[in-house]
Amino acid sequence: MNRRARLIHLDDESDEDNNIGRSSAATGPSRSEPTDFNIPVTEDSDPAFRTAQPPKKEPSQYESLDYDVCENVLWRRDQTKIEPKFTVRKDFARWVISFQIGVCTALVACCINIVIEEVSRLKYGFLKQQVDRNVIHGDLSIPYLYWALTNLIPVVIGSTLVAYVEPVAAGSGIPQVKCYLNGVKVPRIVRIKTLAVKAVGVATSVIGGLAGGKEGPMIHSGAVIAAGISQGKSTTFRRDLKVLQYFRDDHEKRDFVVGGAAAGVAAAFGAPIGGTLFSLEEAASFWNQALIWRTFFASIISSFTLNIILSAYHGLSSFRYRGLFNLGEFEPLPFDYFELPIFIVMGVIGGCSGALWNAVNRRLNMFRAHAIRPRWAKVLEAAFVAVIGATFACLMAYTINDCRPLGNDPTEHPVQLFCQDNEYNAAAALWFQTPEATVKALFHDPPGSHKLLTLIVFVAIYYPLSCVTYGLSVSLGIFIPTLLIGAAWGRLSATLIIMAFPATSAFVSPGKYALIGAAAQLGGVVRMTLSLSVIILETTGNIGFILPIILTLMAAKWSGDYFNEGIYDSQIRMSRVPMLPWHVEPEFQQLLARSIMAKPVVCVRVEEKVQYLLDILKNTTHNGFPVVEDGDDGSRVNGRVIGLILRSQLVVILKRSFYQEASRFWESTVNIEAFRDEYPRYPAVGDLHVSEDKLGGHFTVNMSIFMNPSPYSVEEGTSVPRLFQLFRALGLRHLIVVSSENRVRGIITRKDFLKHL
Amino acid sequence: MNRRARLIHLDDESDEDNNIGRSSAATGPSRSEPTDFNIPVTEDSDPAFRTAQPPKKEPSQYESLDYDVCENVLWRRDQTKIEPKFTVRKDFARWVISFQIGVCTALVACCINIVIEEVSRLKYGFLKQQVDRNVIHGDLSIPYLYWALTNLIPVVIGSTLVAYVEPVAAGSGIPQVKCYLNGVKVPRIVRIKTLAVKAVGVATSVIGGLAGGKEGPMIHSGAVIAAGISQGKSTTFRRDLKVLQYFRDDHEKRDFVVGGAAAGVAAAFGAPIGGTLFSLEEAASFWNQALIWRTFFASIISSFTLNIILSAYHGLSSFRYRGLFNLGEFEPLPFDYFELPIFIVMGVIGGCSGALWNAVNRRLNMFRAHAIRPRWAKVLEAAFVAVIGATFACLMAYTINDCRPLGNDPTEHPVQLFCQDNEYNAAAALWFQTPEATVKALFHDPPGSHKLLTLIVFVAIYYPLSCVTYGLSVSLGIFIPTLLIGAAWGRLSATLIIMAFPATSAFVSPGKYALIGAAAQLGGVVRMTLSLSVIILETTGNIGFILPIILTLMAAKWSGDYFNEGIYDSQIRMSRVPMLPWHVEPEFQQLLARSIMAKPVVCVRVEEKVQYLLDILKNTTHNGFPVVEDGDDGSRVNGRVIGLILRSQLVVILKRSFYQEASRFWESTVNIEAFRDEYPRYPAVGDLHVSEDKLGGHFTVNMSIFMNPSPYSVEEGTSVPRLFQLFRALGLRHLIVVSSENRVRGIITRKDFLKHL
Repeated sequence: MNRRARLIHLDDESDEDNNIGRSSAATGPSRSEPTDFNIPVTEDSDPAFRTAQPPKKEPSQYESLDYDVCENVLWRRDQTKIEPKFTVRKDFARWVISFQIGVCTALVACCINIVIEEVSRLKYGFLKQQVDRNVIHGDLSIPYLYWALTNLIPVVIGSTLVAYVEPVAAGSGIPQVKCYLNGVKVPRIVRIKTLAVKAVGVATSVIGGLAGGKEGPMIHSGAVIAAGISQGKSTTFRRDLKVLQYFRDDHEKRDFVVGGAAAGVAAAFGAPIGGTLFSLEEAASFWNQALIWRTFFASIISSFTLNIILSAYHGLSSFRYRGLFNLGEFEPLPFDYFELPIFIVMGVIGGCSGALWNAVNRRLNMFRAHAIRPRWAKVLEAAFVAVIGATFACLMAYTINDCRPLGNDPTEHPVQLFCQDNEYNAAAALWFQTPEATVKALFHDPPGSHKLLTLIVFVAIYYPLSCVTYGLSVSLGIFIPTLLIGAAWGRLSATLIIMAFPATSAFVSPGKYALIGAAAQLGGVVRMTLSLSVIILETTGNIGFILPIILTLMAAKWSGDYFNEGIYDSQIRMSRVPMLPWHVEPEFQQLLARSIMAKPVVCVRVEEKVQYLLDILKNTTHNGFPVVEDGDDGSRVNGRVIGLILRSQLVVILKRSFYQEASRFWESTVNIEAFRDEYPRYPAVGDLHVSEDKLGGHFTVNMSIFMNPSPYSVEEGTSVPRLFQLFRALGLRHLIVVSSENRVRGIITRKDFLKHL
Repeated sequence: MNRRARLIHLDDESDEDNNIGRSSAATGPSRSEPTDFNIPVTEDSDPAFRTAQPPKKEPSQYESLDYDVCENVLWRRDQTKIEPKFTVRKDFARWVISFQIGVCTALVACCINIVIEEVSRLKYGFLKQQVDRNVIHGDLSIPYLYWALTNLIPVVIGSTLVAYVEPVAAGSGIPQVKCYLNGVKVPRIVRIKTLAVKAVGVATSVIGGLAGGKEGPMIHSGAVIAAGISQGKSTTFRRDLKVLQYFRDDHEKRDFVVGGAAAGVAAAFGAPIGGTLFSLEEAASFWNQALIWRTFFASIISSFTLNIILSAYHGLSSFRYRGLFNLGEFEPLPFDYFELPIFIVMGVIGGCSGALWNAVNRRLNMFRAHAIRPRWAKVLEAAFVAVIGATFACLMAYTINDCRPLGNDPTEHPVQLFCQDNEYNAAAALWFQTPEATVKALFHDPPGSHKLLTLIVFVAIYYPLSCVTYGLSVSLGIFIPTLLIGAAWGRLSATLIIMAFPATSAFVSPGKYALIGAAAQLGGVVRMTLSLSVIILETTGNIGFILPIILTLMAAKWSGDYFNEGIYDSQIRMSRVPMLPWHVEPEFQQLLARSIMAKPVVCVRVEEKVQYLLDILKNTTHNGFPVVEDGDDGSRVNGRVIGLILRSQLVVILKRSFYQEASRFWESTVNIEAFRDEYPRYPAVGDLHVSEDKLGGHFTVNMSIFMNPSPYSVEEGTSVPRLFQLFRALGLRHLIVVSSENRVRGIITRKDFLKHL
């Protein structure tokens, strides 16, 4: 065999190691463009090379999911064994798992909710007591200290957990789930440990009074639960229940995660339809009807279970708790023709304000990624923000004297402060409860419950506070703080309108305008339309009001999109996850496959030496290798494509084969179960203990039963938008580019698109 | 060139000429399996053959849509001319068109609605007058005759229109729209003439008192409007506005039709979200986010416009008419834990009852297709059913003496009949209004508004009546009659429960049970889940009641699916439209491309003689021909695939080329505009006037700038489920099967899947 130099390059991996939600410029000065290395590797290279030279690149943490099922001979054999009964059972199992996903997601949501509710009640009860006792002397330093402390302790606990145990649990988790649905395997994102940290983290953060909500994390929790239940094993607990092995591939797992995310939304907002649509909007390219229905089923079960548990917990005989969060019962909300332009204007304001929020948050997080890198600094930062929150709350309560008669306000702990007896301080009331409760209060308090100044100051404090909070090393969502800001300025707008046109503004109901403001602000920040409309619709329970909501959201999205992208997309971009966009701009029409493909490609023959396989595994970071027939000159270059084999498959073959001494040694131990056992954490190349004598010469591996015999390929003259469509519609990981004679010319992965687009 | 025999076969066409909605065994004894003809065609065959032998098969009416954009050289040239500004303008045009689709759909819906409302008011007012005048003598024959006449005349008008002018306008149109969204071009389905017949037809049928609704046809209307507006030309009116030429291909047109169908649902039910989901469920494989948003936008605009117009028409200052049909304002509908099993049981009953309805309707329509074939017979049949309806209504009103005090019933024309003064006949009230009004009455009438017998007799009459009606040669939907049957038996169930457990049944509200019954029956007949849940949700406007609705629908779907398929799918199957299913059963895993592909394939060279092209166009019914390089033996067989050219392209090239005398004659007249001008009704081969001297010998056509240079192809060993996924996800029409050397082996079209699956 001729000694031949091969070129090794990166395919869909780079060395980015930062996480979404923390992310960004932390990785250092350069976005590392995948570079082509020029390492000459000889086919029968000397052992010194093999041992001395470490792999150039460790596989990065952002790999693609293999949504494309590898239909190799093993898999087909497995399929022939399948009786019709098994097919039915498998399908039934899918429904049962969806049911379990719904139930478990709801259970987790209920636990978090009940803990937060009970502890918050204690906390604010205690604080009110302290205020009432100390206000007599006019000295609020003691309650302030208590407040700061009760904020500080839980936040430090949560923040420490996130920073030290599982950094990927930071933030809302929605961007990570979006990436997963898009087909990117974000490491550790669907592990049980992540779920545990997330659950504890979100409870402590909300109890600690940070400006965040528990709704976003619920979506992430649902996704983790789905991934866990569907696999029948946990790598965290090193348990394998030996069930559901047939669901152990990326395709099946991802379908369940779609359901889990939807169930999470359903639990968080009591919005089963909205949840299904959320999953749909994010993963639309891979949908089919059966999956839609299973996802919908999981959502309904989740919402239903939560409803039963919370209703039972609160001792109600009928269902009232559709979700963790609801906006309370609205009276029918009538609206008039001439209000629609007002709503649109508010939508535009929300869009601009949301865009500003996003821009500031982005800058902050970029700065944070540079400046706050040690773990203790992250914890300290979170602690600092927690205390700041308490400080502003106290200052506002102390300085603004917004006294209202008792009995009007639904707050559980009305604080009197310096007000008369039978009065309470409306400014303090905004702070003396969880943000959820404040949102509801802003929607439902009767007109005139707050002074203009109270609302202005509240927005002025809460807007930057929430902006600083999102990006801390804590588990928190942004739905609630965003709704809160929007509701506050919406209510403010209503007050202003009433002041401006006292005669003609009978139609202005502050609650209605608070709702519109909340929708506008949320739309401006997250920029979803269809799913968000439905979520808000389901949360308010007021279907007649859908038109204003939709108009507001569209106006918010369009005006916001003028400035920048939604917060989740912005986070994903900052973390450099290779997420595929929805479509390719028409400008790229002239770009052809040959101009974006990675080349030359490392190929393997059907019958290949173990030595060569080890070499390519160690010295490249490719995840897939085309299997070729020998070319006309007997080399692998220019061979005709007859299949594709994955790195993970090669690793498993090598790991499971080497203890047999017969020449066709792999047949006995490498079957389809071997691959399922190793999924999803395939061994690293370094862990393969291959004895030297095996490498000597004669041992070969025959790929024919392992390789995917019909990988998707395109001709090198195919246009990029066309390629992209194929890639996205089928959820591909590798797309082989061939000549018109079906000879390998290059290979295209997710990274190759992103490099050029 | 060697004289060589070629084999000609059918690809995605057969000679089926029946329509959906009328359909079925009418086509005669056999489902014509595409047969392979063995006609030896010589390359330079004698002129006698050409002129004497007519084409073996006219292209059938069911062709596939070309959802795959043909990126040939012409198209690329056109793309390079495009400035970024044009891209923005094109995208903006899409939004403007979506807006127009929404507005126009709403306008059409409003017109139909107002006509039906006004004429029905006159009709029932007149009938009541007649009844009141004649009941004194105890003789109801005069009012009966009037009733029969007022049913007969409009129905005959509508039925004549449908039978003689545009048979494709029969039925609800939903199956046809489903087929279109699935990628089948049902002929004449999106023409303006069809819309006109549909609109007049539906108005006359509803006025004529047939058991049908106007909602289904609205969806079809929306689709027609979308197709019309987006193309900027009408073949019916022979007008070409010379605008929007760039939207003249199947891909763009279909995207707009998706929006139109959604706008139709939005107008019909006031359900913009439900409409979007409806389009989504039917066309999920082709979605992307931008399309979702535009579709949603069209739906909102449609719902909004309708709301404004109808509200203005009824003189209201606030919006109350979200759709043509709404179920009226429900009080909040509380429900208890223990009611859920009752709802599920009702769902199962609805599923079974719906399955029975479907089965009977299917049999009836099969019989009808055999027995009632002349057009006059169809009109006669419709007239007969119209009179039967009046007869039963009169009989029921005459015989059942269900007197209730006046003032309780919301009916506009309460008929006294033989009741006391100050009473009205509740049995007659069910018939003395449009079905929509009766549905509302059943939901909202106070408990005890009807005798048990009244409801039983009503269901017993209406169930078979609606079953007979659907399938007549009239434009009518089945939503309303199905809801009506369900509401009646739901109300009946409530009455029975109250009678069975008089002590403990305080929770039973007849309106609630009528709603559940209606949902169950509808779910049992149409078998949609997600979109139907949302439509019902939006129609009732009661979001708190979503859980019971969803449980009922799921129970109905599952129990109905046990017996047969939904009515729309059943209709589509009967009409033999080649609609692709959602997925391929795992049993077909072992089937490979080579076993289902059609072969041998008629190929063309890049430079091909005009004579040969005319021959293949005339003597085959293929719609696509692989373009090949010559094989090793110099023949087209075994050539390497380098492109694909469509029949429509060849026809246009030949039509537009033959008046130039230069040797490269086509360049001057065939450009991308030529193809757009001819779209969508390409000339037939017979209409090409090719002078004999051109066929002599030297004239050739060079395909290189016309052919699609990167058609999708698969290796012959690819499994059928894998193929299918590719086919469905990309909306393909032709998929070339190649050997591992990229030589043509066969071709797969929609029909090839359906032949085997």
